Amino acid sequence: MKPLFDAGIIGGGVIGLASAYYLAKAGLRVAVFESGKTGSGASSAAAGMLGAHTETEKDDAFFRFAKESQALYPKLAHDLLLESGIDIQLQYNGMYKLAMTAEEADSLKKRAEIEKDVEWHSKEKVQEYEKGITDAIYGALKIEKDGKLTPAALCKAFTKAIQLMSGKIFENTPVYKVSRFEGSHYEIETPQDTFFCEALILANGTWSSRLIKEFTRNIFVHPVKGECLSVTMKDGKLSSTVFHESCYLVPKLDGTIVIGATMKEGTWNTEPSVQGIAALMNKAVKIMPAIEDASFQRAWAGLRPGTADSKPFIFKHQGIPNLFVATGHYRNGILLAPKTGEMIRDLFFNRPAAEEYVHAFRMDRAAGVKL
Amino acid sequence: MKPLFDAGIIGGGVIGLASAYYLAKAGLRVAVFESGKTGSGASSAAAGMLGAHTETEKDDAFFRFAKESQALYPKLAHDLLLESGIDIQLQYNGMYKLAMTAEEADSLKKRAEIEKDVEWHSKEKVQEYEKGITDAIYGALKIEKDGKLTPAALCKAFTKAIQLMSGKIFENTPVYKVSRFEGSHYEIETPQDTFFCEALILANGTWSSRLIKEFTRNIFVHPVKGECLSVTMKDGKLSSTVFHESCYLVPKLDGTIVIGATMKEGTWNTEPSVQGIAALMNKAVKIMPAIEDASFQRAWAGLRPGTADSKPFIFKHQGIPNLFVATGHYRNGILLAPKTGEMIRDLFFNRPAAEEYVHAFRMDRAAGVKL
Amino acid sequence: MKPLFDAGIIGGGVIGLASAYYLAKAGLRVAVFESGKTGSGASSAAAGMLGAHTETEKDDAFFRFAKESQALYPKLAHDLLLESGIDIQLQYNGMYKLAMTAEEADSLKKRAEIEKDVEWHSKEKVQEYEKGITDAIYGALKIEKDGKLTPAALCKAFTKAIQLMSGKIFENTPVYKVSRFEGSHYEIETPQDTFFCEALILANGTWSSRLIKEFTRNIFVHPVKGECLSVTMKDGKLSSTVFHESCYLVPKLDGTIVIGATMKEGTWNTEPSVQGIAALMNKAVKIMPAIEDASFQRAWAGLRPGTADSKPFIFKHQGIPNLFVATGHYRNGILLAPKTGEMIRDLFFNRPAAEEYVHAFRMDRAAGVKL
Amino acid sequence: MKPLFDAGIIGGGVIGLASAYYLAKAGLRVAVFESGKTGSGASSAAAGMLGAHTETEKDDAFFRFAKESQALYPKLAHDLLLESGIDIQLQYNGMYKLAMTAEEADSLKKRAEIEKDVEWHSKEKVQEYEKGITDAIYGALKIEKDGKLTPAALCKAFTKAIQLMSGKIFENTPVYKVSRFEGSHYEIETPQDTFFCEALILANGTWSSRLIKEFTRNIFVHPVKGECLSVTMKDGKLSSTVFHESCYLVPKLDGTIVIGATMKEGTWNTEPSVQGIAALMNKAVKIMPAIEDASFQRAWAGLRPGTADSKPFIFKHQGIPNLFVATGHYRNGILLAPKTGEMIRDLFFNRPAAEEYVHAFRMDRAAGVKL
Repeated sequence: MKPLFDAGIIGGGVIGLASAYYLAKAGLRVAVFESGKTGSGASSAAAGMLGAHTETEKDDAFFRFAKESQALYPKLAHDLLLESGIDIQLQYNGMYKLAMTAEEADSLKKRAEIEKDVEWHSKEKVQEYEKGITDAIYGALKIEKDGKLTPAALCKAFTKAIQLMSGKIFENTPVYKVSRFEGSHYEIETPQDTFFCEALILANGTWSSRLIKEFTRNIFVHPVKGECLSVTMKDGKLSSTVFHESCYLVPKLDGTIVIGATMKEGTWNTEPSVQGIAALMNKAVKIMPAIEDASFQRAWAGLRPGTADSKPFIFKHQGIPNLFVATGHYRNGILLAPKTGEMIRDLFFNRPAAEEYVHAFRMDRAAGVKL
Repeated sequence: MKPLFDAGIIGGGVIGLASAYYLAKAGLRVAVFESGKTGSGASSAAAGMLGAHTETEKDDAFFRFAKESQALYPKLAHDLLLESGIDIQLQYNGMYKLAMTAEEADSLKKRAEIEKDVEWHSKEKVQEYEKGITDAIYGALKIEKDGKLTPAALCKAFTKAIQLMSGKIFENTPVYKVSRFEGSHYEIETPQDTFFCEALILANGTWSSRLIKEFTRNIFVHPVKGECLSVTMKDGKLSSTVFHESCYLVPKLDGTIVIGATMKEGTWNTEPSVQGIAALMNKAVKIMPAIEDASFQRAWAGLRPGTADSKPFIFKHQGIPNLFVATGHYRNGILLAPKTGEMIRDLFFNRPAAEEYVHAFRMDRAAGVKL
Repeated sequence: MKPLFDAGIIGGGVIGLASAYYLAKAGLRVAVFESGKTGSGASSAAAGMLGAHTETEKDDAFFRFAKESQALYPKLAHDLLLESGIDIQLQYNGMYKLAMTAEEADSLKKRAEIEKDVEWHSKEKVQEYEKGITDAIYGALKIEKDGKLTPAALCKAFTKAIQLMSGKIFENTPVYKVSRFEGSHYEIETPQDTFFCEALILANGTWSSRLIKEFTRNIFVHPVKGECLSVTMKDGKLSSTVFHESCYLVPKLDGTIVIGATMKEGTWNTEPSVQGIAALMNKAVKIMPAIEDASFQRAWAGLRPGTADSKPFIFKHQGIPNLFVATGHYRNGILLAPKTGEMIRDLFFNRPAAEEYVHAFRMDRAAGVKL
Repeated sequence: MKPLFDAGIIGGGVIGLASAYYLAKAGLRVAVFESGKTGSGASSAAAGMLGAHTETEKDDAFFRFAKESQALYPKLAHDLLLESGIDIQLQYNGMYKLAMTAEEADSLKKRAEIEKDVEWHSKEKVQEYEKGITDAIYGALKIEKDGKLTPAALCKAFTKAIQLMSGKIFENTPVYKVSRFEGSHYEIETPQDTFFCEALILANGTWSSRLIKEFTRNIFVHPVKGECLSVTMKDGKLSSTVFHESCYLVPKLDGTIVIGATMKEGTWNTEPSVQGIAALMNKAVKIMPAIEDASFQRAWAGLRPGTADSKPFIFKHQGIPNLFVATGHYRNGILLAPKTGEMIRDLFFNRPAAEEYVHAFRMDRAAGVKL
């Protein structure tokens, strides 16, 4: 007789893996279905910033969710190292959000007065810490708490840890069809076989809409292409992540600096374009002139799952039993993965979840949201 | 209003691309739907032998189809170079099928007596042409007409040529669902959009069964994993392709020798395994001892679409209008692509096609075939 | 007793390999000494244009030497394929030298009137052949005879052919010291061993000065860094090589377009810089706007051996027996390799060589040349 | 006027870099001369084991030196992370030396009784910790203190740290000649320029003999090629390094397992051979059967600097002022780098160094050593 999984997770990106990981740790028998290799899509294309403070300026539910998720990482990194033997390279070196105009400087100074964990640094002070930053800045907001990690390592660590807890990871396994069978369990049809599971977690990012609308009215998730490149500096060093507008420079533990990321709607292409890479190079040189002489290493691209209000969908379906959705994490998948995984686990076990998150990430959240 | 394609081809491997190419050359407006990148599956993993004589020892329909397909390559290579600017590296250096036992020698000598274009070479004669072949051989069958090419280049050339004839290639575009709409045209549902087309060609190899069974009783196509490696020799040279049992050594125009291929049923994994690569290395060294000192270059794997009788399915559906199938080409996709493309084109235009091929590759061909 | 090579060639770039190849074909026992791998320096970094007409506008000895060298390639390509099994991908699709100003147009029109094998094409005519070229051009000079090939393949083919003629290729073998021993033969000191040879050919490009000055007054060869990138176009195609000033777009037989090359003096760094790659991208988009959407493939760099008058040194030393020099080929190594190899062979055998070439490429050629 | 470096270090492998690093930290102005890129030779090819206990079974000077060097790593890793931003991935998971025969078991049990920090584990106990180890073992010696790191990261971290302390790293800079000038300083002749320095440290591994013999009687250092491959396991995990004879399996922090290493004398070839990789695969499968199904990742090779007694040379020359040698570290370069760097620094400053190390690693140490 066929095995019946407790939970089938559709999508082996960081959100699907995090959901599977927390469910497996809670003792469930899980199966992850991934059409390519785990972490091969948007997850690995990410630069790996944990930018809770950089993604929003409002103290709202999303911001609090992001901060809670960020706070889960130190323990998670430790657990994953022990469980999987893989180091996700978590680091807390802080971030600088640059002010390149007087207006931007004013705005950032105001944030520094109001918010905790952020501080205004004058140009001189910024350059004391980060010698290579351009003279053209007015100063920068220092964000202490935001860290970074290596996304590909995170996905590998989740994958290995799930397998070692007897979870199944089916790679090269696109899901053709999902159906609720005889009012009791789900059937997941794949080229390899048809699998059975009690609960279903839809976590396939940019490709989420299809399966969701089989069950319910649709959720609109669309691709937003992001391109990145990496370089190594011959002289000089960057310690903190530094960013301005949508160009960020993220120093990694192997000595490279990742420069990202473009934002392109309406394309499903996953290769870095000449235009995108050239634009990033130009912006990076404006932020840190010595990047001009840095050695180019490589370039890549990925498709982020965008939503109308740039917030994710994380909910238990109200009408259909044991159906969960975790998708639309846009450019925040790495940041939000641990808290999303915990929330899916809590929803699964009907544990009390924070009302504001249930409200903020439900499918029918706002009249203004195009669903 | 939405464009209506004359033909929608599901699958951007070499069979789907060949079908689209010949249809586009006949003046049709085609669209190819590929879940990854064109040619990224079994097609690019192939070693690129055009082994009409190596794949069968019977003079049957399959053998004649293979020889006709092989004969189409010189013109096709020329056309593709002019149309796309890409060289598929077609070469006719002949092949040696080795006899490693007295029994094998007898069997090959008999073939040499009966068949055209093949000749028995004594050990001494083989070693005169190919100095590095092992002393352990009894001789070999020289197969003059069989050639080789570079599969990845073939797929790129088809892709570019189709695009330049205004055909559309949709990469990163898995097909969720295909339905025949209002008795008139097909709708192809993808994450990007829903597309319309008059005719449908199913050519998605190992993944073919699903869509076919939406329309008709199923065709059983299953994955047969093949692993390969490439090496470069420090001293010595190999001119012809040389093989024994399922281990072949294929010299390429860039100086590498491709060594393949394993045959593993029942797995969907697409990464080369330690066991598979080690086994190929051991066999190759037995065939050509100096391979021992060759430099290892790289290893890879792919999934061939296997069928019960190891023959492809190429047919126009008898009950459903404008539905065509071209799949199950197993380890012969590169060899059979041109003739398959032509046959699909001829079936499309209701041109008279060779009765024996229609019969040989129809879906319900033999009582003994498990469908 | 130790073997005595007829000729020891210092440098396994395209010039050293061509010299060794022609000497080996003449029946000599040759040895090539290369500190890294053959063809791994400037030779493989080259884009592979055979631009006899693009490198000079004067009908001088250099120009004639270049044209003769170019004319040797068809036979050489054929021979190398037979001898080594490696295809150097020689192609003659012509080149376009673009006029982006009225002044440039005038100058090119004048060349078209005077020179053979070149023709002025109006903007309309250019765009008829090459649809993607920018509207900003005034027209272009069509250069029919200039071809292109794949430099890395050329170096591999030379290497394999030399080995199969019993020549020795010593890779990973820097030459520490060369000395003329007892007035009779040369000793080549390397980490592996000390080797003996009758004649010495110095062909180590950017690194040539050192060994030359051991014997004679110095020849000044300095590095000129060149950076390149490759892209693939999603739509459209480029058939001819197209260039303006020092930015050229070279379509290759595998469907990629190589874009090169920067010119940077005074550096020994061999990695592509952010600034260099960004500059090339910007220039390429000006020449062919659709490059903007092309997929970036990779970037690389190499060091060309520059000389004061940008002409090579190819000579037999007048005072020291059996000492030959072939270096300083700057950005023309691929173009000039066959004729340089032949000239070294002819000098070796004291065959009559064209007086003008002996004069043009001798070490003490011009008062104005800084040696 | 030209700068005068305090110390010129010939060789940018891990030993040269470690020497430069400790000298720079002591306040000296250093320059490193490297013919390729730093860490690109034997250093990066190493698997990164810190096997003080695995390299010797005698409690001699070499063993004590190795243990002291190993003990320096925790602080060094911490310092390098702060200074360079690069994590050398130091890990202490212990090692298992396997007993595959009763004889080996006896021998290891005896070691367990005598030595500190090592313990005999029965087969059952080994398999409790490392589930995948073969049933064919008799048990294993658990070596607690030995760790591992990522050699390429170590070399990058040293390089960056030296640069940030104003040290100069000259890459692509072979040293043609070194001469002691006017009895006062050294001149280092390179293709880029001639550099001056007060002291000279010869640390160019396999290539050391040449420069040393310019000054003094020769030290014999010869290449011992080592080949490695890396794999990832689909199921199961390896936590400790496990080895038997010269085949070790080293789990890395990114989830791969490095399998090494062959030992081949008398070759300067740096590419992995078919024979070498196949042999390692076969041995690894014997140690851990599930490796059979692991995915092959890549293969590589490097040349270790071997000496007659397999011990390094680390000394200040007695006759020539300010001349230091640090070479011949064979397969222990990573392990011995920190202590070697410290010893070179101490010798430089005439600080008291341990007599036994001075004695053990001097150039004329033993009558029996072939120098």
